[in-house]
Amino acid sequence: MAPGAPVGVYDSGFGGLTVLRELRRSLPALDVVYLGDSGRAPYGGRDADTVLDFAEQCVERLFGEGCQVIIVACHTVSCVALRHLQRRYGSAARRVLGVTIPAAEAAVAQTRGHIGFLGTARTVASHTFRTEVWKLAPQVAVSEVAAPLLAPLVEEGWEETGIARLAVQRYLAPFAGIDTLVLGCTHYPLLARAFRALVGPEIAVLNPAPEVAARFAAWRQRHPGLAPEGTGRLRILSSGDPARFARSAARFLGEEPPPIERVAERNGRLAPCPDGSDPVGQIVRPAEA
Amino acid sequence: MAPGAPVGVYDSGFGGLTVLRELRRSLPALDVVYLGDSGRAPYGGRDADTVLDFAEQCVERLFGEGCQVIIVACHTVSCVALRHLQRRYGSAARRVLGVTIPAAEAAVAQTRGHIGFLGTARTVASHTFRTEVWKLAPQVAVSEVAAPLLAPLVEEGWEETGIARLAVQRYLAPFAGIDTLVLGCTHYPLLARAFRALVGPEIAVLNPAPEVAARFAAWRQRHPGLAPEGTGRLRILSSGDPARFARSAARFLGEEPPPIERVAERNGRLAPCPDGSDPVGQIVRPAEA
Repeated sequence: MAPGAPVGVYDSGFGGLTVLRELRRSLPALDVVYLGDSGRAPYGGRDADTVLDFAEQCVERLFGEGCQVIIVACHTVSCVALRHLQRRYGSAARRVLGVTIPAAEAAVAQTRGHIGFLGTARTVASHTFRTEVWKLAPQVAVSEVAAPLLAPLVEEGWEETGIARLAVQRYLAPFAGIDTLVLGCTHYPLLARAFRALVGPEIAVLNPAPEVAARFAAWRQRHPGLAPEGTGRLRILSSGDPARFARSAARFLGEEPPPIERVAERNGRLAPCPDGSDPVGQIVRPAEA
Repeated sequence: MAPGAPVGVYDSGFGGLTVLRELRRSLPALDVVYLGDSGRAPYGGRDADTVLDFAEQCVERLFGEGCQVIIVACHTVSCVALRHLQRRYGSAARRVLGVTIPAAEAAVAQTRGHIGFLGTARTVASHTFRTEVWKLAPQVAVSEVAAPLLAPLVEEGWEETGIARLAVQRYLAPFAGIDTLVLGCTHYPLLARAFRALVGPEIAVLNPAPEVAARFAAWRQRHPGLAPEGTGRLRILSSGDPARFARSAARFLGEEPPPIERVAERNGRLAPCPDGSDPVGQIVRPAEA
């Protein structure tokens, strides 16, 4: 086991930086490599096979960066692909952790009987959150609603606009009688102001990120050596435009990000791509020899 | 040349059905196979190599279905990969046509000197539309704006909401002094009402789809045998969830679609996949042999 192995945090885009923020708050000396697959986000409307392909590429990239433990911050990946990633890559020396069980535990601890859950289309279609809640508390009602436009809206930087309020209002309309609303996508905490204004005081709005960080801190105590203390060094890799990522990152992370390192898909793998400027115009591949 | 060869229409998702609608309006006896790569849409943020990979797979699938002529309806693919597809697959017996040149020609015919162009991030970054306009009319000004949220908004079915109006308004704000606005993404014609209401009477809103259909009808006269008269038979293939595709298709196509045939990536090719129902919950892939 490498002495200074960083922890990997994987998300489909910027959203997981809201989880990383909580992680750095509770464990400031942790070294972290964050991978945001922004170039291919959002995952929420994509087919399950594609989500699995992307998840494999991202997890392999993070193991390639020396990580021994990877936190899958993205609810879509966590709900659909976590078990696959754990079976394919997990071992005594390499772990893949998710966010769905922490979210379900926090919601069950909070609810008086009826949990609302908002997530991407793929997350909601999986019913993995509901499954995890019912393992803990079979008597609790769970209403799940898909909100496919909210993550792209936050990616666009429109979270403080009237558009955001109208969209949140529309997605809240189907819920009836819930007492706890789980923000089941890492982008939604940036819309917390709209949510709080629109749900009313009788409904608790739950951002699972602090619970994810708290549970990781406890897990780390039980697994000494896998996520050793470091110097708080943070690296950020992204498959998207680094300049665009850097502009959004501070908003999600709550601090200035380091320079964003570009990665890109090459022959089915996510590889470092230092000169990642996008080509312009028609692209013609050379004929195969 | 097969006597009943259908024409292929390829798009990254549903959007190209707005082009297909115009094609069936002007050439109702044409047999068509439409391929919507919904499972991997949107293409906009993928790296160029991946867009080319997907485009190759889709075009090969359509040639495999017996097509001799393929219309690339998607502006992103047309702006980035068309020339590559033409060089790789084009011959006297097999043609690949795009939408960018028809869009540029229609805009140049219409404008009094300043064209606005709205498209996906990748379409706009390619500057291919502007390049094509300047080949025809170097003195014309072209302003290009990326509108990444509009296609997902239409996919959500919100095109007649206040949210759509606000989003369109926001994306129109950077344009100054244009007289013609080109809807450079196949999803945008569904927002035509919002566009017309917001741009004012002095700006012409141009949906390139009718021009694409008209130019194809003329092209067909010059290339007898490549796109022969049929019986108006339509098949639709999709790499995405067929049920979801079917729900959206009528809105784009303007008629009830036939049963959607599922295709999926297998060993780097897009293959028929008749039992393609979406799995629920955690998905574990079998280990490779």
